[in-house]
Amino acid sequence: MSVTEQAVRAREAARVLAKTPRAAKDAALQAMADALAKAETAVLEANAVDVARAEANGTSAALIDRLRLTPDRIAGMVQGLRDLAGLPDPVGDVVRGWTNANGVEVRQVRVPFGVVGIIYEARPNVTADAGGICVKSGNAALLRGSSSAADSNAAVVEALRQGLVDAGLPADAVQLIPGPREVTTELMAARGLVDVLIPRGGAGLIDTVVRNSQVPVIETGVGNCHLYVDATADHEMALAILLNAKTQRPSVCNAVETLLVHAEAAASFVPQALQALAGAGVTVHGDGRAAAYGQVLAATETDYAEEYLSLDIAVAVVDDLDAALAHIRRYSTGHSETIVTESQRSAQRFTAEVDAAAVLVNASSRFVDGGEFGFGAEIGISTQKLHARGPMGLPEMTSTKYVVVGSGQVR
Amino acid sequence: MSVTEQAVRAREAARVLAKTPRAAKDAALQAMADALAKAETAVLEANAVDVARAEANGTSAALIDRLRLTPDRIAGMVQGLRDLAGLPDPVGDVVRGWTNANGVEVRQVRVPFGVVGIIYEARPNVTADAGGICVKSGNAALLRGSSSAADSNAAVVEALRQGLVDAGLPADAVQLIPGPREVTTELMAARGLVDVLIPRGGAGLIDTVVRNSQVPVIETGVGNCHLYVDATADHEMALAILLNAKTQRPSVCNAVETLLVHAEAAASFVPQALQALAGAGVTVHGDGRAAAYGQVLAATETDYAEEYLSLDIAVAVVDDLDAALAHIRRYSTGHSETIVTESQRSAQRFTAEVDAAAVLVNASSRFVDGGEFGFGAEIGISTQKLHARGPMGLPEMTSTKYVVVGSGQVR
Repeated sequence: MSVTEQAVRAREAARVLAKTPRAAKDAALQAMADALAKAETAVLEANAVDVARAEANGTSAALIDRLRLTPDRIAGMVQGLRDLAGLPDPVGDVVRGWTNANGVEVRQVRVPFGVVGIIYEARPNVTADAGGICVKSGNAALLRGSSSAADSNAAVVEALRQGLVDAGLPADAVQLIPGPREVTTELMAARGLVDVLIPRGGAGLIDTVVRNSQVPVIETGVGNCHLYVDATADHEMALAILLNAKTQRPSVCNAVETLLVHAEAAASFVPQALQALAGAGVTVHGDGRAAAYGQVLAATETDYAEEYLSLDIAVAVVDDLDAALAHIRRYSTGHSETIVTESQRSAQRFTAEVDAAAVLVNASSRFVDGGEFGFGAEIGISTQKLHARGPMGLPEMTSTKYVVVGSGQVR
Repeated sequence: MSVTEQAVRAREAARVLAKTPRAAKDAALQAMADALAKAETAVLEANAVDVARAEANGTSAALIDRLRLTPDRIAGMVQGLRDLAGLPDPVGDVVRGWTNANGVEVRQVRVPFGVVGIIYEARPNVTADAGGICVKSGNAALLRGSSSAADSNAAVVEALRQGLVDAGLPADAVQLIPGPREVTTELMAARGLVDVLIPRGGAGLIDTVVRNSQVPVIETGVGNCHLYVDATADHEMALAILLNAKTQRPSVCNAVETLLVHAEAAASFVPQALQALAGAGVTVHGDGRAAAYGQVLAATETDYAEEYLSLDIAVAVVDDLDAALAHIRRYSTGHSETIVTESQRSAQRFTAEVDAAAVLVNASSRFVDGGEFGFGAEIGISTQKLHARGPMGLPEMTSTKYVVVGSGQVR
């Protein structure tokens, strides 16, 4: 079946989902969870095929770890679906409403997008997660996972579709898009059939989709995040935030990649920071001024420009807040930017002038996350300015419609 | 100067605008209004050059009328800028906010997009209008008008820039992009420099921008709008809404282009409708069943598929609400769709099942308009589902940013 045919089926399913009330969608999510739990053995067997293929291809241990499913990870996926059933349904929410002077009533109401395409990389748990979020928000999902997880994804989707059928909803509300690389191109060209595309993965994937898609895209996730320690920062606080934001989970987009230190704080703070980072196993790539305070690798342009997503950090000493803002303006991907300061004026300027999805004062950038924000579910963190910016929960998976009701009014 | 250089200057101006409080922006809008009023003679002279060129090229009288400026039309542009100064500023609005269990405070705050590109056709009044809306919402404007209005647009923009300078804001907050057709391609490729592109004009222009832009686009305006007269409709009401929605201003996107009539209402309603439409000078393109009730031209596929934007209408008799919904699903551009009915069930199904920016019950689709909605200003009517759908006022010209404030919290 071609992508276009799959998209046409998805549109039909989306029409049904859009009319399905919350209770029926929640019952379907529970049925999907039941079916996935029941399919545990089949999913593990399919995953073993993927893992064996990856090992034969010489895939890195880190990637194989992301690919590998275990009974625990499957239980997590099952619980994720059940958790979605417990969340409020954004569809039907009245965003605002008013009555015109002539008595015409206007309401702006949340409605599903329709068909959502999600293009993602290795982790097979995204399959259940994204499928569930789409169903909950009334959208049909076209899931384009990576070929390395093809067997796992197929087994998971088969279970989700069984759950939909068990609950009386159309199986085509969740479809996997198999096939070679070219089908992604077909998906990006399916304007009018697919309402929005969400790429989830590395910078290369996201850039390809953003540049080539004719379907509107929500850009997610690349986070070259900075932590700026101001002249007045509490050094103990700055150290705690630095270690947390760098090391608690270095592979994610809201981890810190560059530390900027105000020149006045450098002599006291940088030596402490270098020691603490070394203690946590972090490799430091420093500029000349940072190197004055300890052993560092020499930072290059690439160190400032790209995400490490590893236990590495770039460190630079800057003259003042303006220099920090200029550095961030130059290298930031607009994800999450942090200042540690005791100065109200610095905090105010930083939050006002940094152009990013999230700006933080005296808190770890690891808090920029749908779960930490209390959204219950997250489809990704948008780094674009249209539609949604920052962590995207269920409401961000909807559009709106104006419902206008009169009694014969004309202009 | 290249488009890229213009965009870089716009970004610098946008940084200033983003920090400019409402009072200063409003003062700038008043100064822009003053400068435009003062430049009346120069603008009229420039417009005369455009009009003479259009006449020499054999441009239609309708297009020349849209191109022509008069003292009244300039006064309207001046007043439009003053009206913008009186509207609330969306920037800085706190959309929502909460405190996490750990005491971290989160606020979602409206911020400008940054640099907004607007690509539009003949009418030079859009220049002042769009420039003013961008300044009010804190965005720098890159205005790409049509070459047919090149002289008028240049004179208007010169006045607006003078006003900005008089008020102490950067002139580059409003720039006209001159030059040949290729510069539009350059603008569409300026990803990272331009934050959003808004095409305003005919279907061809909008389609070109949507398909070719690497900058995120807000799609506006094409309205192939339907009016469905249900079996239970009040015929007098339906007639009034039909005439208003078709004839009050046929050239706009929220005018009705196709009338669908339930078979049970046809024998009584269609003859009345044909007579009333003829009386209002409307040419009717009917299907076979409509033709049974009077003199009509035979409707073709094109009659159903395209906007007339003129005193023409397609008329078709449908078996029931389902057939009307299917017709709308097939031909609608998702702008504004209307039902006239006395049936609660039909109204409910129509508003729930029609996928459009606005769905109306017993009211004229001419109400789907920023002015009628009380927005005070309108940059266009979005027919896409991302970001904004329906009439776009000042808040729709903004993005948001999460401001996260803690006192040293880590995960």
